[in-house]
Amino acid sequence: MDFVQENSLAVFGPDGASNPIHVRDTIRKGLWTSHTSGLADGHVQGNVVILPEVLASDFLRFCQRNPKPCPVLAVSEPGQFTLPSLGKGIDIRSDVPLYRIWRHGEMSEEVADIASLWRSDLVTFVLGCSFSFESALIEAGIRLRHVEEGKNVAMFRTNVQTEPAGPFGGPMVVTMRPMPAADVIRAVQVTSRFPNVHGAPVHIGDPAFIGIADLAHPDYGDAVALMPGEIPVFWACGVTPQSAILNAQPAFCITHAPGCMLVTDLLNHQLASF
Amino acid sequence: MDFVQENSLAVFGPDGASNPIHVRDTIRKGLWTSHTSGLADGHVQGNVVILPEVLASDFLRFCQRNPKPCPVLAVSEPGQFTLPSLGKGIDIRSDVPLYRIWRHGEMSEEVADIASLWRSDLVTFVLGCSFSFESALIEAGIRLRHVEEGKNVAMFRTNVQTEPAGPFGGPMVVTMRPMPAADVIRAVQVTSRFPNVHGAPVHIGDPAFIGIADLAHPDYGDAVALMPGEIPVFWACGVTPQSAILNAQPAFCITHAPGCMLVTDLLNHQLASF
Repeated sequence: MDFVQENSLAVFGPDGASNPIHVRDTIRKGLWTSHTSGLADGHVQGNVVILPEVLASDFLRFCQRNPKPCPVLAVSEPGQFTLPSLGKGIDIRSDVPLYRIWRHGEMSEEVADIASLWRSDLVTFVLGCSFSFESALIEAGIRLRHVEEGKNVAMFRTNVQTEPAGPFGGPMVVTMRPMPAADVIRAVQVTSRFPNVHGAPVHIGDPAFIGIADLAHPDYGDAVALMPGEIPVFWACGVTPQSAILNAQPAFCITHAPGCMLVTDLLNHQLASF
Repeated sequence: MDFVQENSLAVFGPDGASNPIHVRDTIRKGLWTSHTSGLADGHVQGNVVILPEVLASDFLRFCQRNPKPCPVLAVSEPGQFTLPSLGKGIDIRSDVPLYRIWRHGEMSEEVADIASLWRSDLVTFVLGCSFSFESALIEAGIRLRHVEEGKNVAMFRTNVQTEPAGPFGGPMVVTMRPMPAADVIRAVQVTSRFPNVHGAPVHIGDPAFIGIADLAHPDYGDAVALMPGEIPVFWACGVTPQSAILNAQPAFCITHAPGCMLVTDLLNHQLASF
């Protein structure tokens, strides 16, 4: 994923970028059109998919069948642009820093506001993302190499097929994080508590088992080294539903631009199932 | 809930009623039209809701917004009568012992087979039920009074409103199980592992807090005594979606008859999230 050039945090003013409502307000004004990593620290950020109602039922069924790659945090009513369960005053037409507009499976443009494109039949899906569980892993003392090296996480297409629904289907995409065995055990425990943000790993160990030929060549994101004694750990990835949507080639679809997520009022800790 | 008179277990033949495929085969032949409690012990049983496609999207959105009372185990494609993720050879037109047919919110008939009513626009939902978590509680050494007394669990309408979706909404219905404080703590732990079958309790203690006037007078099921030192523990109940459907008064809808669930091939233990 390519991040657009970072804006200066100065746009958030003297209050800084810790309050999610203030962050969204700044984004709504068009002052921040960059990725949201590190903004409103401790709060849940979500992947955004906006589809015409005619496809919404199929897509929701796809998510229900594939909860690990597609954990649904909220679904709007058709035409509704607020998401009260995720945050005060959210307006999904303006509160994502950068949107991608897709027509028949091709990206047609990137825009900072979709008010002019809004339609009464659009249904918004917000899906959990790995920022939340990475935060929990770091709090548990587990070192994440891609974070320490300032890289995007390594992502791979697998030979594991999702359960299809309507036009949506295709292979599961996973993220990989290398860690020592003791941390793997703890990471399974920690992420099991967060089923709404991908949950427990889907695979541990030999990448060939899930059809990954070479860890040094990820399909998306940046490669990270696997050190001696480390085990690669694979989690279901939010690129899976994006890939399923591209394959389905809907006539019209809006997503967030990579890394430019919806910042919500929910605390990561509120997503823990126990 | 009124159970129809129990059939004789002799209909299951020398192989008995422990194998879910054999149980469904016997049910399919019309030899068992009674409740399924105790059949295929250790296997997941599910609440069944069959709705026309025009309402299926609203109902799935209702379930997504209310996962504790409405935990979705599977959703079919429109017209599809198999449920491969839940069991080998399931035919939802015949594999539930007794169905209720609803027209405009009124029950019109109870039948043992819906093949003649099947339509290409019908979508089947299977929702988790408390049999699975009760099994886990009993295995954890927690005594359940209604089970020991051979009663149906006590159910109450609350003043807690569900998050509506389309025509579906209304109050959450809960089950109540009384237990000593030490067991309450353990019960929270045990049921937290089973988010797909109602998960952790929704309330503990004072019933008035959720709008329940008198534990001795449940709205559904049988009253059980609250002994000195015991705390009432409340879980979200699968009657909630049934109640939401009745309120929505769909022109046509099929459900299982109370207690006459779909027996699946899944083991209860497979539903544990960790």
